[in-house]
Amino acid sequence: MSPQYQLVGSTFDTGLYAEVQQFYSRQMRMLDDGVVDGWAESFTEDGVFSANAHPEPAVGRAAITAGARQAHAALTEQGIQRRHWLGMLDVEPQPDGTINARSYALILSTPRGGTAQVQLSCVCEDVLVRADGRLLVRERRVTRDDLLEQ
Amino acid sequence: MSPQYQLVGSTFDTGLYAEVQQFYSRQMRMLDDGVVDGWAESFTEDGVFSANAHPEPAVGRAAITAGARQAHAALTEQGIQRRHWLGMLDVEPQPDGTINARSYALILSTPRGGTAQVQLSCVCEDVLVRADGRLLVRERRVTRDDLLEQ
Amino acid sequence: MSPQYQLVGSTFDTGLYAEVQQFYSRQMRMLDDGVVDGWAESFTEDGVFSANAHPEPAVGRAAITAGARQAHAALTEQGIQRRHWLGMLDVEPQPDGTINARSYALILSTPRGGTAQVQLSCVCEDVLVRADGRLLVRERRVTRDDLLEQ
Repeated sequence: MSPQYQLVGSTFDTGLYAEVQQFYSRQMRMLDDGVVDGWAESFTEDGVFSANAHPEPAVGRAAITAGARQAHAALTEQGIQRRHWLGMLDVEPQPDGTINARSYALILSTPRGGTAQVQLSCVCEDVLVRADGRLLVRERRVTRDDLLEQ
Repeated sequence: MSPQYQLVGSTFDTGLYAEVQQFYSRQMRMLDDGVVDGWAESFTEDGVFSANAHPEPAVGRAAITAGARQAHAALTEQGIQRRHWLGMLDVEPQPDGTINARSYALILSTPRGGTAQVQLSCVCEDVLVRADGRLLVRERRVTRDDLLEQ
Repeated sequence: MSPQYQLVGSTFDTGLYAEVQQFYSRQMRMLDDGVVDGWAESFTEDGVFSANAHPEPAVGRAAITAGARQAHAALTEQGIQRRHWLGMLDVEPQPDGTINARSYALILSTPRGGTAQVQLSCVCEDVLVRADGRLLVRERRVTRDDLLEQ
């Protein structure tokens, strides 16, 4: 049975679990506040961002940054504040030193003067690595629930 | 005053707190992905699942499994991806070695090709036990906010 | 660059992170269940609660309590169960011993017999202090996304 379908075993690392939570909080806060350069630095230089909503993955920090910048500019023009919530985090250190981190993701949108709405429900599956003591995303795969095929 | 209405005291166990978070992440991922047998194994053999939405509790792993399997089959037929989010977790180890874990629960639904929606807001109150090093649910009580009586 | 836009550094405190999560769980549970006195005791006697939805901050525990009591009475009269979800927590201990805690906040409402809805998306920025071993809120600033100015 694949690892995400096993209950917690004996290798659980408390400190890492909380650190990944804090990492995501800061990473998403930067994205949502339009601090795109800072956000991009949370990916490795050769990071890969793939999604079932995109035909091709974005490869490399520059491509990932460009996509995020464009998306944020469009939201700003529409007067929309977006918030990425990650939750239901599952952290699993790998023998090669990388870290598999799976979570549920909600994207909420609030138009200026309007009502907050859940826009998307997704699963986010990351491969994290540590560089100079810090966590970075080497691979991210986002699967939107509305685009799942049965 | 009952324990859930007291601020954090000196007995707080950091490691346990994160472990319960990870336990719930995997447990709910199994339920939402239809890995019902795996999900059922997160309850004790004599586990009890009660809810203010059900006239009687489900008693024992077999009954709990049957309910979950039926619910998942119905969602699959309707092309709905459901997600259980637990948050606002409160973990309180008991003198007898059991663990009280209270959380808020949101159930979100996304129809294939449609829009994600919050379907239910609940409170989830568990009694967890440890067996062979792993956490298991011995009792779960789910209270839907829409069915609360004043 | 301001601290919330930096990735996690070497000063991260695992135990504190989980403790703040548990603190918020209990604090919000008290508010949502109308245990207003208990909730008010999670603020310092001279605590300050400010919000971009309010022209003036509430200063002191008595003023904070009065506001919460009024809000809860109105919801009870309308038969609405409210839930405060904090997530995406970022905890940053300060050199002076205080703790900066930033989080996203969702407020959900469920009318008796009705459907749960996300009502507000906010950012919550707290200064926490420790007194007699317990965390307390000395300053809280809540920023509603729908009232953000560009």
